[in-house]
Amino acid sequence: MNVVVIGGGAAGLKAASRIRRKDGDANITVVEAGKYVSLGRCGLPYYVGGLVHELDNLRETTYGAVRDEAYFKKLKNIDVLTETLATDIDRNRKTVKIVRNGSEDELNYDYLVIATGARPAKPPIEGIEAKGVVTLTNPEDAEEIIEMWEEGAERAVVIGAGFIGLESAEALRNLDMEVTVIEMMDRVAPAMLDKEMAILVENHLKEKDVNVITSTRVEKIVTEDDRVKAVIANGKEYPADIVVVATGIKPNSELAEKAGLKIGETGGIWVDEYMRTSDESIYAGGDCVETTHLITGKKIIAPFGDVANKQGRVIGENITGGKATFPGVIGTAIFKVFDFTVAAAGVNEKEAKDAGFDYFTVIAPSPDRAHYYPQANYIRLKLIVEKGSWRVIGAQGVGMGDVAKRIDVISTAIQAGMTIDQLSNLDLAYAPPYSPLSTR
Amino acid sequence: MNVVVIGGGAAGLKAASRIRRKDGDANITVVEAGKYVSLGRCGLPYYVGGLVHELDNLRETTYGAVRDEAYFKKLKNIDVLTETLATDIDRNRKTVKIVRNGSEDELNYDYLVIATGARPAKPPIEGIEAKGVVTLTNPEDAEEIIEMWEEGAERAVVIGAGFIGLESAEALRNLDMEVTVIEMMDRVAPAMLDKEMAILVENHLKEKDVNVITSTRVEKIVTEDDRVKAVIANGKEYPADIVVVATGIKPNSELAEKAGLKIGETGGIWVDEYMRTSDESIYAGGDCVETTHLITGKKIIAPFGDVANKQGRVIGENITGGKATFPGVIGTAIFKVFDFTVAAAGVNEKEAKDAGFDYFTVIAPSPDRAHYYPQANYIRLKLIVEKGSWRVIGAQGVGMGDVAKRIDVISTAIQAGMTIDQLSNLDLAYAPPYSPLSTR
Repeated sequence: MNVVVIGGGAAGLKAASRIRRKDGDANITVVEAGKYVSLGRCGLPYYVGGLVHELDNLRETTYGAVRDEAYFKKLKNIDVLTETLATDIDRNRKTVKIVRNGSEDELNYDYLVIATGARPAKPPIEGIEAKGVVTLTNPEDAEEIIEMWEEGAERAVVIGAGFIGLESAEALRNLDMEVTVIEMMDRVAPAMLDKEMAILVENHLKEKDVNVITSTRVEKIVTEDDRVKAVIANGKEYPADIVVVATGIKPNSELAEKAGLKIGETGGIWVDEYMRTSDESIYAGGDCVETTHLITGKKIIAPFGDVANKQGRVIGENITGGKATFPGVIGTAIFKVFDFTVAAAGVNEKEAKDAGFDYFTVIAPSPDRAHYYPQANYIRLKLIVEKGSWRVIGAQGVGMGDVAKRIDVISTAIQAGMTIDQLSNLDLAYAPPYSPLSTR
Repeated sequence: MNVVVIGGGAAGLKAASRIRRKDGDANITVVEAGKYVSLGRCGLPYYVGGLVHELDNLRETTYGAVRDEAYFKKLKNIDVLTETLATDIDRNRKTVKIVRNGSEDELNYDYLVIATGARPAKPPIEGIEAKGVVTLTNPEDAEEIIEMWEEGAERAVVIGAGFIGLESAEALRNLDMEVTVIEMMDRVAPAMLDKEMAILVENHLKEKDVNVITSTRVEKIVTEDDRVKAVIANGKEYPADIVVVATGIKPNSELAEKAGLKIGETGGIWVDEYMRTSDESIYAGGDCVETTHLITGKKIIAPFGDVANKQGRVIGENITGGKATFPGVIGTAIFKVFDFTVAAAGVNEKEAKDAGFDYFTVIAPSPDRAHYYPQANYIRLKLIVEKGSWRVIGAQGVGMGDVAKRIDVISTAIQAGMTIDQLSNLDLAYAPPYSPLSTR
């Protein structure tokens, strides 16, 4: 059996590894356009901010061994071709055309896995291709930021206050730069948080001397000698040596589309619950596919490493004769920004309204451990509960305390279809260093 | 309506507060034998170890106000009588006899709440009543330990390696004392952990210079001038200036028994799922009652503050006309010992065997965040899965990493009846500072 995997990120490599585990004989080839496979892109802001000292540290390891081409060849007998572009899929002949070192070649497949990921969705702003404008989605972006900083860059503008934008803002502040974040919507983290929760995050950013400007659209990037000089928004000029564009992502579905595979309304590749595309020999997973939001029933792009990982496993199972499924996500997400953790699961108020839910909300502020225990910190939780069924359908958490635990528990409860009473009656682990008494 | 609550701990005060919230007119009297109400006894080891500086800090607060007698009177119109002993219940006349400042009195009730808690179960060892032998369940014990330490006590023996014993061992090591822990069973934390998980904790204790002796029964406490001098176990003498006895607890069910209420096989007061005793005017909750283990179906004592709190709420609801229930627990528990977190939920192997489960186990070691993120620490998880149904019925977690989050998620999954596949497919919050990618 010949399997070709396009894309050496989480979904592609997980699929390849799973296939090998189930089938010792398959010929497996992974084609990756970039220089590296298995790179933890989610860690780039921590590399820029100085928390992670070497780019190489971001590469996935197994018992200390970096998972590079040699690792995959030697330990898993998987051929990994980096700096290799897949340019065309011929579904009749079941071949993939590749370009490597300037010369073309062709790979035959019985099964093809498309895991081409996503790319930053840059808004059509004048000057956006200038030097000094980066997206922090590739190691090259990270290196470029650090280089500019070493050369004396002092002022940065971040366009977009989603989690990548805010993680970038923190990283740049850690380099002691002046940082301005400009967001089109009326709040930070608009995809996750309702307004009154977002304000807490905005205040925390301001405490950390980040200039936050919401409800404002960037009009133009001013350049000098093809180099960024300032950002103009609402008629005002914000001087900038570095601009980080973090205005969302776009699935890399063009190759699939060119091959005639079904593309969803979201722009992501359509797949069924077995992660199979409209061609039964072709599977797809990761940031390039759309998936189902289990609360709203709508199709969404869920560009998270953990989702890609799970989808890759399902693909590997099914190519080797299994019947694994990936039913969808509930949009669980988390990020750290300075001393705050920001997390959400299920729907926020806007999503609940759009999906036609009749709901009420509960705000629950509480410390994250016994009030007398050192390091106890406050967290603010918001729950969205469906009227009638009393089912919890959404949660948001913000604060300096242990938001991660709360969101993961509530996320689990949401996925189990629990009511708010069932959630509040859960037998959870209590001890002073880990949880407060009163809210449980 | 007259309500009398016997016991000013978590269950009693929660019941009283809930009744007041639902019924502005009820006469509510709380009778407490000790000096304080609302004291976080779980925090005593942290007071002894110096993490919490004042005993008063352990008292529950609401927006900074200590919940003492004045607080309950002024803000909730609840009469709290401390240093008052309830000596007799007359169920026909619906009265409680109390002794206060040496004089007797009687309180009438329409509803009575028994929340008398538990006391240490001291084993019948010679010398156990000597000076210097404490249990660390009361503020007085904590003060006594600190006093002895200030007077030069250098060596401590802890009898019992359950969570209170190990928390005490840490506290005493923090005072730079020589500490020996003697446990009758073949492992530390025997009620929570299987042997191979317990060994990790034992090794950590040894790294922290705690002398751990298992499978050993204490024979005698040697005294001099009625003061502890040494502990004899397995014929060997362990010199000791302080002995902490932490060999489990015994529910304070005597008052209920004397009144003819039904007592369970565990020694705890029997209650139905509404927390009502065998007398429909009398409710009971907290450490003095028995509850149902939802996995094994067996009756157990679950002496945890969070359980007491929830039971108190159910009692308050039901006395004021509600129909709330407390179905039981799955034995979720957690404690910190030095740099380790130890936690469990559901059944361990012994409990699974005793309850007749056909099961298999899964060991899952993993870091608690992205491998490249600073402070990433390893944790070791063990799952117990029922054969056939694939339902997760138990979990244990040990390590320096964020065990608390994992156990709470798994505990939620166990209570939702999830299979191991459902658990591993959960959409949880991923970001490098909070979770690793590979195991999700």
